[in-house]
Amino acid sequence: MDNWQIVEQDFRLEEALVNETLFALGNGYLGMRGTFEEGLGPAALEGVYINGFYESAPIIYGEKFQAFAENKQTILNLANAKLIRLRIGDEEFSLLSGKLLSYQRLLDLRTGVLRRSLQWESPQGKQIQLEVERLVLHTRRHVALIRYRLTPLNFDGPLTLLSGIDCAIRQSEHAENDPRLGTNFSGKVLRLQHKSFLGQAVVMVAHRTVTTGFTAVCGIRNVLDAPAACQAVDNDVMGFKYQIAARCGQPVTLDKIMVYVASFDAKAEPAVASIQTAEDELDAAAAAGWSALVAEQRDYLADFWDSADILIEGDDALQRGIRFNLFHLLQAVGRDERTNIAAKGLTGLGYEGHYFWDTEVYVLPFFLYTRPEISRDLLRYRYHILDKARQRARQMSHPRGALYSWRSINGEECSANFPTGTAQYHINADVAFAIRRYYDATGDADFMKSCGVEILCETARLWLDAGDFIPSRGGQFCINGVTGPDEYQILVNNNAYTNLMARENLRFAVQMVSWLRQADAAAYHALAEKIALQDAEPDAWREAAEKMYVPYDAERGIIPQDDAFLSKAVWDFAHTPRDHYPLLLHYHPLIVTRYQVCKQADLLLAEFLLHDQFERAQKLRDFAYYEPLTTHDSSLSGAIFGILAAELGDVDKAYRYFAETATLDLENKHGNTRAGIHAANMAGTWQGIVFGFGGMRAHDGLSFNPTIPAQWRAYAFKVRYRGRLLALRVTPDETRIELLSSEAIEVRLNGVPVRLD
Amino acid sequence: MDNWQIVEQDFRLEEALVNETLFALGNGYLGMRGTFEEGLGPAALEGVYINGFYESAPIIYGEKFQAFAENKQTILNLANAKLIRLRIGDEEFSLLSGKLLSYQRLLDLRTGVLRRSLQWESPQGKQIQLEVERLVLHTRRHVALIRYRLTPLNFDGPLTLLSGIDCAIRQSEHAENDPRLGTNFSGKVLRLQHKSFLGQAVVMVAHRTVTTGFTAVCGIRNVLDAPAACQAVDNDVMGFKYQIAARCGQPVTLDKIMVYVASFDAKAEPAVASIQTAEDELDAAAAAGWSALVAEQRDYLADFWDSADILIEGDDALQRGIRFNLFHLLQAVGRDERTNIAAKGLTGLGYEGHYFWDTEVYVLPFFLYTRPEISRDLLRYRYHILDKARQRARQMSHPRGALYSWRSINGEECSANFPTGTAQYHINADVAFAIRRYYDATGDADFMKSCGVEILCETARLWLDAGDFIPSRGGQFCINGVTGPDEYQILVNNNAYTNLMARENLRFAVQMVSWLRQADAAAYHALAEKIALQDAEPDAWREAAEKMYVPYDAERGIIPQDDAFLSKAVWDFAHTPRDHYPLLLHYHPLIVTRYQVCKQADLLLAEFLLHDQFERAQKLRDFAYYEPLTTHDSSLSGAIFGILAAELGDVDKAYRYFAETATLDLENKHGNTRAGIHAANMAGTWQGIVFGFGGMRAHDGLSFNPTIPAQWRAYAFKVRYRGRLLALRVTPDETRIELLSSEAIEVRLNGVPVRLD
Repeated sequence: MDNWQIVEQDFRLEEALVNETLFALGNGYLGMRGTFEEGLGPAALEGVYINGFYESAPIIYGEKFQAFAENKQTILNLANAKLIRLRIGDEEFSLLSGKLLSYQRLLDLRTGVLRRSLQWESPQGKQIQLEVERLVLHTRRHVALIRYRLTPLNFDGPLTLLSGIDCAIRQSEHAENDPRLGTNFSGKVLRLQHKSFLGQAVVMVAHRTVTTGFTAVCGIRNVLDAPAACQAVDNDVMGFKYQIAARCGQPVTLDKIMVYVASFDAKAEPAVASIQTAEDELDAAAAAGWSALVAEQRDYLADFWDSADILIEGDDALQRGIRFNLFHLLQAVGRDERTNIAAKGLTGLGYEGHYFWDTEVYVLPFFLYTRPEISRDLLRYRYHILDKARQRARQMSHPRGALYSWRSINGEECSANFPTGTAQYHINADVAFAIRRYYDATGDADFMKSCGVEILCETARLWLDAGDFIPSRGGQFCINGVTGPDEYQILVNNNAYTNLMARENLRFAVQMVSWLRQADAAAYHALAEKIALQDAEPDAWREAAEKMYVPYDAERGIIPQDDAFLSKAVWDFAHTPRDHYPLLLHYHPLIVTRYQVCKQADLLLAEFLLHDQFERAQKLRDFAYYEPLTTHDSSLSGAIFGILAAELGDVDKAYRYFAETATLDLENKHGNTRAGIHAANMAGTWQGIVFGFGGMRAHDGLSFNPTIPAQWRAYAFKVRYRGRLLALRVTPDETRIELLSSEAIEVRLNGVPVRLD
Repeated sequence: MDNWQIVEQDFRLEEALVNETLFALGNGYLGMRGTFEEGLGPAALEGVYINGFYESAPIIYGEKFQAFAENKQTILNLANAKLIRLRIGDEEFSLLSGKLLSYQRLLDLRTGVLRRSLQWESPQGKQIQLEVERLVLHTRRHVALIRYRLTPLNFDGPLTLLSGIDCAIRQSEHAENDPRLGTNFSGKVLRLQHKSFLGQAVVMVAHRTVTTGFTAVCGIRNVLDAPAACQAVDNDVMGFKYQIAARCGQPVTLDKIMVYVASFDAKAEPAVASIQTAEDELDAAAAAGWSALVAEQRDYLADFWDSADILIEGDDALQRGIRFNLFHLLQAVGRDERTNIAAKGLTGLGYEGHYFWDTEVYVLPFFLYTRPEISRDLLRYRYHILDKARQRARQMSHPRGALYSWRSINGEECSANFPTGTAQYHINADVAFAIRRYYDATGDADFMKSCGVEILCETARLWLDAGDFIPSRGGQFCINGVTGPDEYQILVNNNAYTNLMARENLRFAVQMVSWLRQADAAAYHALAEKIALQDAEPDAWREAAEKMYVPYDAERGIIPQDDAFLSKAVWDFAHTPRDHYPLLLHYHPLIVTRYQVCKQADLLLAEFLLHDQFERAQKLRDFAYYEPLTTHDSSLSGAIFGILAAELGDVDKAYRYFAETATLDLENKHGNTRAGIHAANMAGTWQGIVFGFGGMRAHDGLSFNPTIPAQWRAYAFKVRYRGRLLALRVTPDETRIELLSSEAIEVRLNGVPVRLD
């Protein structure tokens, strides 16, 4: 089987929801779940999303305390433009009735085309052949396409095709007691604001949200290649019904262009302009024609794969798995500085379409080293919401600085459970670290001057107010009352990850303020004036960094995850039934937090990110201590363990972690892929190759320490770094590094400097 | 001014809400806010409550985790039977119009009668004299009375009296962001199930809740002493309108008997039986007549005061304050084993009518040493909900034992914010401690056999599962991940109060199991079989108690409130504006918990309760350390500080704390008395006298170490102990102890044994 293709060979109703996620298409702006054109009744979870298009409502608390997040933001399921219903005589085509004679669904990762082929026999014995192709264009973010080709196999007779927009939109309900799904809206949240019909082809509808005042315009244009009687349909479904006298063996093709245009301007009456845009996009796409659009998409993806592809020789399943992951990351990522990448991409309502630290720590490196302009857009999103972070800091009584919200779309805090939400102050340091990485890999001084240094200053300021120099700790700088990445240890003191990353935040802020002062005095003074930066502030940050407290347990020689971790009993893994994982769905948070048990990598993540600040022996001891305590109940865990295992020389273990994560969604290993992909894990698998097996580290220079699993013949990847494009190919015998761009560069390979030119 | 009387001399609209609370009447079953018969429009917060009469609804969470409390329970405001509207010609009597020529409201604590006297001139110049008396009978828990006497002062003419039941019931809204008020119901939660009119006097209505299926029957009977044309009224108000040709100077009197009967049986169709009960109660009260009912009430209260009164000579304000508090405690306390004492008594919707640990630690001693049968009823309530506590333990994954809910009415956990709710496991030990106190003071072996030992076993079992023997703490028994009484330090490890009180729980369980085994082998075996008690269990409890970890800071010589407390910075009190208290209304819980700052006594409370387990020097150091860190943002704080100050010899300080707490509600010192009284603080003031200045301690014998504030000439109180009634009178010169019952007893006075006979 082609390892560029994801193929479903049989239709199984019980796998329909998961497959809707896997076969979802998107372009970072628009996302469509892989539901069928004809629907699947209540068995389907229809979903069309625009990145950042949400409705808001007050969060209801049984007991509401000061500065609790006020409003939720939930991404919305929009009108469904994919709808095409087929009637053969008086029989409705549906996979839930009749007989499926053959079936295949295929997602081609090179072309970005989703193709479904099937032969179906109606209850009355009429047979048809159906070929459906679908694309969501990367080249035209508002546009998606369907080509629907139908052939009667054993009859002549009347057919009816209904192609329209389904406005009976359901914001899906979530399962009980799974906090990962969040609270979606249950009622009708989109109000029809406009509808229009043009000729026998075009329908345009506009919906508006009540509270946020966003408008989503959805339009379609049908082109049928057969003579037909046409009738407009105007109810929940708005579209056209085509009556066709079909002939046995003669295909009928319906080309459907779909557009989605959002306006986020709540003040204006935006429908007019957005409808105009939608009409223009429809016209332009129609003028270009199917073949040209398909070619656009293929070319765009060819360019993407040219630098992003990872080659694994000797393991088709993992090869396919990692490509699938990278394909979905591209589909999910916002590229307009105003949107970001949701935890579930644009494939489901899980986590309400929120952006988390996942972006900075998990997703960003993939784009940074393959499509750095996208990583810049992601960081500019953080700059765009910096004012919201300043406001959040004030709400939290911090007189200075900025505190990024734990989860949000527009930047305002939306976490309704502060012990695993607002308490995760580490997000500030994660953003700062991403900026450090970005600057290291791009040398983009303009970004640092216009955005980066300002974020660094504001996040550094916050640490100074969140922590204190504690006398009983010898005056060291302690950060109490936070939750680290490991959400099984809530409201802890001196979470090692947080303290280490905050120290890096403080240090880098000091360094970059100093840089700015020297590199561009005018820019420095402008910034200093804008944020009232005092000369003494960086000195204070330096002092806090120098005196940062990092817990250490001399007896065991390990770094405790937090002050209290080692004073807890170890979780009774032996008596925890297999079906009691993930623990968060089976134990109250209070119970879990009383024990040494981790949901995900926490300290180990810091030891990976800040790799040059720890001795190898330290990492070995810490890895050995924490691995048995970690449930990997978070999909963010395995990739990091795999990377560290590779660094520490246990390639077999690294392989097992990689294999587990590479097909996490494709094989629905966490059991909840129906609610959407796990974007952070997908990016983690890229890191597993590049940082893990490839041993790439980048901080003041690029280095590689490649290893290769015994199962593979070779693997290869490319990275962009400071304007260069490098290609690595690793086999059991050798590592070849090739410079694909002109300017020379020196890297370290297995500790040895290598000059590439 | 008589220090048995609470008097309001002027009507001030801005004090109306607070006064409604202060002049509330109740009998532990029925409670009525002190609103006016004629109402006060939206300025009033009408409130009639039956203890334990609540509606339930799912608690809504933005993110709901496993074992979060499922349903809220909120006490309901019932139909208002107090309503009497007066029209003089075409003018409606209201304190919001016309002119108030004189006004006085007086609550007589000896007779339990609330009397309002006023002269009022209508906008058109008609003057009336109004005298209204109101009682809620302690002797007939369903019955309340109003005598409404009206005299035209300067006119003859038509009057209309409307006396009925107002069924337009509002469940009051709460102020934003005050978690202490909880979420009340906003819609209509009581459904009219029955209404009937009898003659020209009796109206009966029944309302039923939807979810809990409770029924509240409310009836009235009007008796007018003047000829009148009568007309039934049947709208939101159901009652009778009496038209009277009034004569100048001739009083008209309306006697109104009110009954409230609740049925908590959701299965039966209970209205019939309850209506019958209500009719019987109305008939019986009418047959007894006003004077006899008033006499009943007076006699009941005389008996109450005979043992409960506290005498303070030389300070009328505090004398009145403490009597007011004790009066309200009697009004609030449930006496039927199925209800308890709500945090706000039956005077408001604050804290939703929930029962907390307040009962066991604050309220119970007052009743135990004055009306021990009431304290037994309170403890039997805990036995009654023991099965709910067992269920809660299972929900929390504890395989054995019982975990009392932090806040509830029917025993199921209702706390919607687990860091300050479910995390307060100490409630288990508080219940156990109350049982220890009860047994010590009463010797009630029957209670121990039927209820007490079973509760002790189940709570002890829970501690064994909640804590662990921690190797890194030398195998000591640690309890991690709890919140102590001080809710400003959330989710801490080894909260000293919790560990100390859990140790006592374990020890007392061991002791009483051993006692039961010897005292009544059959009872022991029955219990052992019922709860599957293994012989080895008490040994395990003993071991956990012996190895209980209690934090200690050798450098400062103090007991840290928890493992992390001393590693935090001290709260910046100097820069906290006065209006930023209570901190919980101005800072996110995360911010507060990062600092050494206490909402209330925590460790110090344990040092008071377990007084004989600490050296005096230890208590002195701890008091000196914690006092400056305590904001007393909880009304439960001051009393305990006062008691310890007295014990430690600082009588001036003890006096200041006492004075602060004694009039906390009367002077609305916490600014929220409008939402209801602070029952625990009221009981704390009794403790302030008896345990504080009186220095009484009772554990294996009774002792007194009296002191007296310089401001007082004398104080006196009585205590019941093991069937005896003792009277103490303390002056600056001497302490007199008198035995008022027959059986001899030995007590210790200032450390010296004294035999009383």
